Amino acid sequence: VASGALGPGAEFDAIRGMLDRWGPRAKGIGDDAAILDVPRGDRLVVSVDTAVDRRHFRREWLSAREIGYRAVTAALSDLAAMAARPLGILTAITVPLGLRDVLSDLADGIGDAAGACGAPIVGGNLSGGDELSITTTVLGSCYAPIERRGARPGDRLYVTGRLGAPALAIARLTSGVEPGAVRNRFARPTSRIGEAIWLADAGASAAIDISDGLAADARHLASASGVSIVIDARDIPCFDGADAATAIASGEEYELLVALRGAVDADTFAARFGIPLTLIGSVEPRGSELVEIRGADMPPGAGYDHFSS
Amino acid sequence: VASGALGPGAEFDAIRGMLDRWGPRAKGIGDDAAILDVPRGDRLVVSVDTAVDRRHFRREWLSAREIGYRAVTAALSDLAAMAARPLGILTAITVPLGLRDVLSDLADGIGDAAGACGAPIVGGNLSGGDELSITTTVLGSCYAPIERRGARPGDRLYVTGRLGAPALAIARLTSGVEPGAVRNRFARPTSRIGEAIWLADAGASAAIDISDGLAADARHLASASGVSIVIDARDIPCFDGADAATAIASGEEYELLVALRGAVDADTFAARFGIPLTLIGSVEPRGSELVEIRGADMPPGAGYDHFSS
Repeated sequence: VASGALGPGAEFDAIRGMLDRWGPRAKGIGDDAAILDVPRGDRLVVSVDTAVDRRHFRREWLSAREIGYRAVTAALSDLAAMAARPLGILTAITVPLGLRDVLSDLADGIGDAAGACGAPIVGGNLSGGDELSITTTVLGSCYAPIERRGARPGDRLYVTGRLGAPALAIARLTSGVEPGAVRNRFARPTSRIGEAIWLADAGASAAIDISDGLAADARHLASASGVSIVIDARDIPCFDGADAATAIASGEEYELLVALRGAVDADTFAARFGIPLTLIGSVEPRGSELVEIRGADMPPGAGYDHFSS
Repeated sequence: VASGALGPGAEFDAIRGMLDRWGPRAKGIGDDAAILDVPRGDRLVVSVDTAVDRRHFRREWLSAREIGYRAVTAALSDLAAMAARPLGILTAITVPLGLRDVLSDLADGIGDAAGACGAPIVGGNLSGGDELSITTTVLGSCYAPIERRGARPGDRLYVTGRLGAPALAIARLTSGVEPGAVRNRFARPTSRIGEAIWLADAGASAAIDISDGLAADARHLASASGVSIVIDARDIPCFDGADAATAIASGEEYELLVALRGAVDADTFAARFGIPLTLIGSVEPRGSELVEIRGADMPPGAGYDHFSS
């Protein structure tokens, strides 16, 4: 932990304040670096993700606690995409002078996400700056991580959960409409850690988490695997109120898109995790398009804002 | 790697540009998370450090290449403080639209630091924002990491290298004077990885890297170990042109302050690493002051800017 420019005492006071809030969810903080043990035989899996004010979140849409929770959950979702079990979390926060009062709530949200995945906060950094941002490093481990590049022609393509709620929430918040039930799905997403481990055990050949939108992430998967992907829009599980076009373009879902070689028992999955596992397409030899979406009137390149516009 | 708000194509183009510059110094980038192997029997050591524009560096004092190099070296220094061997580096960069042209040079500096320590860049994040910042996560491993809390009364206190150059460089740059020879030491510090491993093998009981200044970091070490530290200012190895007061207060040194139980062969160390290893004090039972500096006319609380002012 530490270093930075919050000023004398203030930095350590703020860190102590966060540690108090985290209680047993923080572990071993206070040395130059954290020490962890990777289970014997496992490989280490690590990812980093940054959330910047007004780029990745809006303070008028989300509470500080939700912002902290989402920042960590987005990073954990990258571990889920590899079917890794979380070992520890590091949180590097840059906070402007005028926003220091959000640190407690931000810390609570970070603690919520750590508690939800069962991995401790093992380190971090607190720094002054002109712009609020949270950079989260997640460490996990796995005997055989699922990679993006493992999809092969003949694999079936599944998606977890129901898609579209974050896009609906953003559209409603943007136009000043009360978002209703989709707000919670947007503000409190879930990283599909347990689901990913189950899918790995069921023989998943490739996976990616849906952060940029189903169409965009299917392209990433197809590109990395050297295949094409065919999705039937009519099979996409949509959140209440979302149509297929919305579900296909909706980002920050943190659901998993998974290629599986054999058959999988979706009923057992649904009973275990309380969300559907839906067959939405197939993996084909590389064709002229990386991703073909059938049964919907939409451009095949449709994706999340950042990438499609 | 990835996610962010650089805009369509620009983000991936920028990432590809950095990967091209890094060549073999980057490894396994492109999945949701990086996969690494921790040597059997070793523990995982991990730290994160953020450098924010105008808080931790000034673009008028340092080139973008030096800024990138320093950001990674500062993080690696935390691994050195634990005597860990670097395994991999993740770099999360937030860059304003108007500064995108510095990314290539920043990447070169990050690559320089990776090349210098021999660990690959295994992942990262690139995001838009209003403020340039670099958050570096470093992963290392070690059979028995040295911790801050291990110092015991009777231990001898050593410091690597010569102190004071960064403080002199900052003072000269601030007053518009050509900094001369101290500039390189400030702009191109070295993380003492090999030195730390040597000191661990020689029986180091506790260590910390000097980032806040000798006096401040001695306090951190004393506090964590439940001891007091006595330093003789006349024994502190000073960089050419620096007096003891400057050397004691100078931060961002990235030298190591180490407690050792037995005798150590400083000549062998100096011959091996080309820098001195100097006995500057001793570890005592906890007294009224955490750190006592003898032989100098200076307040015992003197330390680096951030903390002493």
